[in-house]
Amino acid sequence: MKFGRKSKGNKESRELGFGTKSYGPNTRLIARDGGFNVNKTGLKFWQSLDTYHELISMKWGSFILLVSSVFFFANLIFALLYFFAGSGSIAGAHGSSVLDRFLDSFYFSTQTITTVGFGQLSPNSNFVSVLAAIESFMGLLGFALATGLMFARFSRPRKRLVYSENAIVAPYRDINGLMFRFANSGKNHLIETEVDVFLSYWNLEEDRRFFERLKLERSKINFFTTSWTVVHPIDNDSPLQGMTPEECANHHMEVIIMFKAFDDTYARTVYDRNSYIHSEIKWGQKFVPIFTEKGDGQIHIDLEKIGQYESAALN
Amino acid sequence: MKFGRKSKGNKESRELGFGTKSYGPNTRLIARDGGFNVNKTGLKFWQSLDTYHELISMKWGSFILLVSSVFFFANLIFALLYFFAGSGSIAGAHGSSVLDRFLDSFYFSTQTITTVGFGQLSPNSNFVSVLAAIESFMGLLGFALATGLMFARFSRPRKRLVYSENAIVAPYRDINGLMFRFANSGKNHLIETEVDVFLSYWNLEEDRRFFERLKLERSKINFFTTSWTVVHPIDNDSPLQGMTPEECANHHMEVIIMFKAFDDTYARTVYDRNSYIHSEIKWGQKFVPIFTEKGDGQIHIDLEKIGQYESAALN
Amino acid sequence: MKFGRKSKGNKESRELGFGTKSYGPNTRLIARDGGFNVNKTGLKFWQSLDTYHELISMKWGSFILLVSSVFFFANLIFALLYFFAGSGSIAGAHGSSVLDRFLDSFYFSTQTITTVGFGQLSPNSNFVSVLAAIESFMGLLGFALATGLMFARFSRPRKRLVYSENAIVAPYRDINGLMFRFANSGKNHLIETEVDVFLSYWNLEEDRRFFERLKLERSKINFFTTSWTVVHPIDNDSPLQGMTPEECANHHMEVIIMFKAFDDTYARTVYDRNSYIHSEIKWGQKFVPIFTEKGDGQIHIDLEKIGQYESAALN
Amino acid sequence: MKFGRKSKGNKESRELGFGTKSYGPNTRLIARDGGFNVNKTGLKFWQSLDTYHELISMKWGSFILLVSSVFFFANLIFALLYFFAGSGSIAGAHGSSVLDRFLDSFYFSTQTITTVGFGQLSPNSNFVSVLAAIESFMGLLGFALATGLMFARFSRPRKRLVYSENAIVAPYRDINGLMFRFANSGKNHLIETEVDVFLSYWNLEEDRRFFERLKLERSKINFFTTSWTVVHPIDNDSPLQGMTPEECANHHMEVIIMFKAFDDTYARTVYDRNSYIHSEIKWGQKFVPIFTEKGDGQIHIDLEKIGQYESAALN
Repeated sequence: MKFGRKSKGNKESRELGFGTKSYGPNTRLIARDGGFNVNKTGLKFWQSLDTYHELISMKWGSFILLVSSVFFFANLIFALLYFFAGSGSIAGAHGSSVLDRFLDSFYFSTQTITTVGFGQLSPNSNFVSVLAAIESFMGLLGFALATGLMFARFSRPRKRLVYSENAIVAPYRDINGLMFRFANSGKNHLIETEVDVFLSYWNLEEDRRFFERLKLERSKINFFTTSWTVVHPIDNDSPLQGMTPEECANHHMEVIIMFKAFDDTYARTVYDRNSYIHSEIKWGQKFVPIFTEKGDGQIHIDLEKIGQYESAALN
Repeated sequence: MKFGRKSKGNKESRELGFGTKSYGPNTRLIARDGGFNVNKTGLKFWQSLDTYHELISMKWGSFILLVSSVFFFANLIFALLYFFAGSGSIAGAHGSSVLDRFLDSFYFSTQTITTVGFGQLSPNSNFVSVLAAIESFMGLLGFALATGLMFARFSRPRKRLVYSENAIVAPYRDINGLMFRFANSGKNHLIETEVDVFLSYWNLEEDRRFFERLKLERSKINFFTTSWTVVHPIDNDSPLQGMTPEECANHHMEVIIMFKAFDDTYARTVYDRNSYIHSEIKWGQKFVPIFTEKGDGQIHIDLEKIGQYESAALN
Repeated sequence: MKFGRKSKGNKESRELGFGTKSYGPNTRLIARDGGFNVNKTGLKFWQSLDTYHELISMKWGSFILLVSSVFFFANLIFALLYFFAGSGSIAGAHGSSVLDRFLDSFYFSTQTITTVGFGQLSPNSNFVSVLAAIESFMGLLGFALATGLMFARFSRPRKRLVYSENAIVAPYRDINGLMFRFANSGKNHLIETEVDVFLSYWNLEEDRRFFERLKLERSKINFFTTSWTVVHPIDNDSPLQGMTPEECANHHMEVIIMFKAFDDTYARTVYDRNSYIHSEIKWGQKFVPIFTEKGDGQIHIDLEKIGQYESAALN
Repeated sequence: MKFGRKSKGNKESRELGFGTKSYGPNTRLIARDGGFNVNKTGLKFWQSLDTYHELISMKWGSFILLVSSVFFFANLIFALLYFFAGSGSIAGAHGSSVLDRFLDSFYFSTQTITTVGFGQLSPNSNFVSVLAAIESFMGLLGFALATGLMFARFSRPRKRLVYSENAIVAPYRDINGLMFRFANSGKNHLIETEVDVFLSYWNLEEDRRFFERLKLERSKINFFTTSWTVVHPIDNDSPLQGMTPEECANHHMEVIIMFKAFDDTYARTVYDRNSYIHSEIKWGQKFVPIFTEKGDGQIHIDLEKIGQYESAALN
């Protein structure tokens, strides 16, 4: 049982930046979507707002809904102003009931803010003329803002990595290996790909978390075009040598994965993170083949099989 | 005959990321446009969609056609809605026949979605007023989207490298060399340029693919302003030493080229790939000069000659 | 007293790029917002203008005010041109007083520049028709410019680092250490984080400024997710060994901090700078804990406490 | 006289990427604006077009002129189509003369393409209605394109480096040094700044160009906030040791400067190039001081003096 060597684990825990005491034994450090399990408080509301980040990272549905709501309420406010300007201030608004007059104000507002300006309704007083100028100006600026945000949303780096649901401990050469498999499901080209894997566990005697880098069979490839099975050989130098699934659970083990590549399609460096906790590691399994031969000179990868495994006797 | 040394080739094949068994002997690994010869399946339709990538990477003609189609069908749908709102709901639509009434609805729709809003046709019912507000709002958002996509298309890194159609084996100093020539045909400045060349071949005995990095006369230059003839000297350390064109064909040889540079004009790192398969390598040829002297103190490169060669006796 | 060792300080001062003579003893080198304390003159007005930088970096309030002013004055100019085109040149302008005629010209201008074009006012002469075409074209280009600027403002890298108000000298292991604490208050992910710390002081004998890099307990972490307390151990190699607060003040000491990280959310490298001058360094204090345990398996950081310290006896 | 050492110069000439034979003795390799003195031919017209680059890099005046011309000619074409649709096809066009009818068509076109759509002129036939729909659609797409291009122009990296007009040979410590001075006149922050300097000369005996890297007193600084005087000490290892201005002219000497920095304000790496040919190097001069003390605790640099020098006796 190698868990608990003090010096090295301690050093690397600091390098990773998680600290050793702040995380309880039952804490997952990295969420499956690559997020960090950290909650920051103590900022004033406006400091914590990070509006830009929210607008850029919210789902498209929410974004469209938000923009539509802003559009609706902006129209409502201007409609009320036009309405209170009194009857006759909008030429072409013939409604006599209060509702009809308000609706005409609202329609005039929508035609102004979008700059469609049919003209069947048109300003008929100085107040409404000035207000309409302001509204159309604000409309244009607002849509300019929406355009800018849309492009900012588009230009965010996107990663479409699919990871195997589980890591496995499988026979590897004449020993065993800890493995996981992943691939890029997007159509962008990832090159100069690097992977770094850390083991994190709770030291029962010292009552704090330790971290250790795992040696990999291969940590860098030039073209990440197919799938990649990352292998940590469990040799005599491995902290996993001699460990059992039960001990891993007792030590609240977590395998942390750092991924780095250059996205050739969008010319930028992308990073990704993932982790497997002890219950997500399957012992005595191996991944099923993912390549299919069709004799057409092309390589076929079936991404549906990325996480599929079958039982295999360990060495 | 040096093809088939196990250790080194094996290691580098893994580094490249192609795997060794998935590619049959007749598979080309890298297409002439730098794409990878890989087909990914097993994703659900919406997972494989990568809409953004499609919209960004499709040809300009297709993009304009797509935007125009969306414009046309959006108008069609709104036109039908206006049409079914009944006659009289659009002021100024005097057509009496069904066709005329539909056309007026369609014209009204186009004038609304583009926000041109002449006003000779204008909303004359609450339903049409509200619908027109929605349509003009959608029109503006749609054109905002198109604007964002257009800029995203513009801002994609573009490489305008022209490679010689063939690699050649030519006399080089007192031995021979494998060479290819390429240049940047764009007006952007490429600097800190690096080239890496790999040899890939099918090992007949082991029935799988091997890879080996080829040593280059020079693998980095500061300014990539003229053309660059990349040379692999076929010395005693070269896997090509003693090989014949026939043996190269038998081993399904492919020369893989990786290119990296910093694009000073657009401030980003660009990568490129290319490959020459055995039938694209001409033996006993040399490239014709590409520089022309005009006595005006300027360097002239004739890119038309980039791939031209003439016969030359090998050493 | 170690301040004043010639060779090393001299060398590093040159590396930093501040020069040694240009800064007087009372000059702060780096402002608290990371700016440099340098004033450049001698450029012609148009050379020093850097309009783009101003438009991109001014506050949002100023930007909106500027755009609104441009909008207003552009309208004013066109309104005057329409006004001087004479009565009758705008159809629908029935005002008889000079003021009413000018207001109609102004309203027509706003309806043209925003392309709202109600049509209750419309061109009624060749001069006005041509002018209106130009104005609407300029309006569209102007709003295109505003859109581009808005996105450029959005896409600027933003850093939301919060630093402790003071650096402290606190007990560290069995010696003392110079420490400061900081965190990322934004929702973006910072990874591959590096810190470099320099000591700057005025050499009283040589009458010029010296610089020295301070050795850190740890200068790099992988994930900058929580807070980071950077520690310079004041051991026998430290230039601060044996120094007193008074001597630091006499030497006009300044601690310069350079921060570098990769912003994973926006895919770019970010840098930051900060400094603490002698009066901002508190001796015999230690930072209060910033983590709170809530037993929910999450890490909680209270950023309000980032700069809070309490007294602690020095070793 | 050290010019002409074969091995080293030869190697570095290849590294730089200029080649050795293509440049005649009278050729300047790098223009003062950092461009390369290379002319590429042999591309088909459409291959050499690089439209995007032209649109992005042309001056703002040219760009505005181009956009305006496109606007004008697009209007002209549509005006002709409307005109030939016959009288009566545009409602509100009452002109009876051919000129008046054409002008009405032109005004209608401008009101359609900008989507201002006053409505005093409006479509009155199916042909004109459809054409107007197409024109307003094209107008919106065109302005979307212009918006995208404007932002692409904005987001290009811009360097505002001011170099001394001349390099000088000045006394340096107890020997002499080749020096030039430069500064960043922009308001962006440049950090992690590096400079590399090469000497290029024509070897009279071998009749080709040689290149050699010059050793610098300091080649990297952390903050490029003030001015930087780059110094090559002419010691016994320097190829310039013992050279005279006449010999430099005979050898068609050129000093090539490569600059690299990280632009902290726009979060990207920027490069720059410059060169001084023999006639731009002044011997026995030194740069005048550029710093001015104003006692306000700020550093003042007078960029007007960046290239000013005064005579100084050489060692």
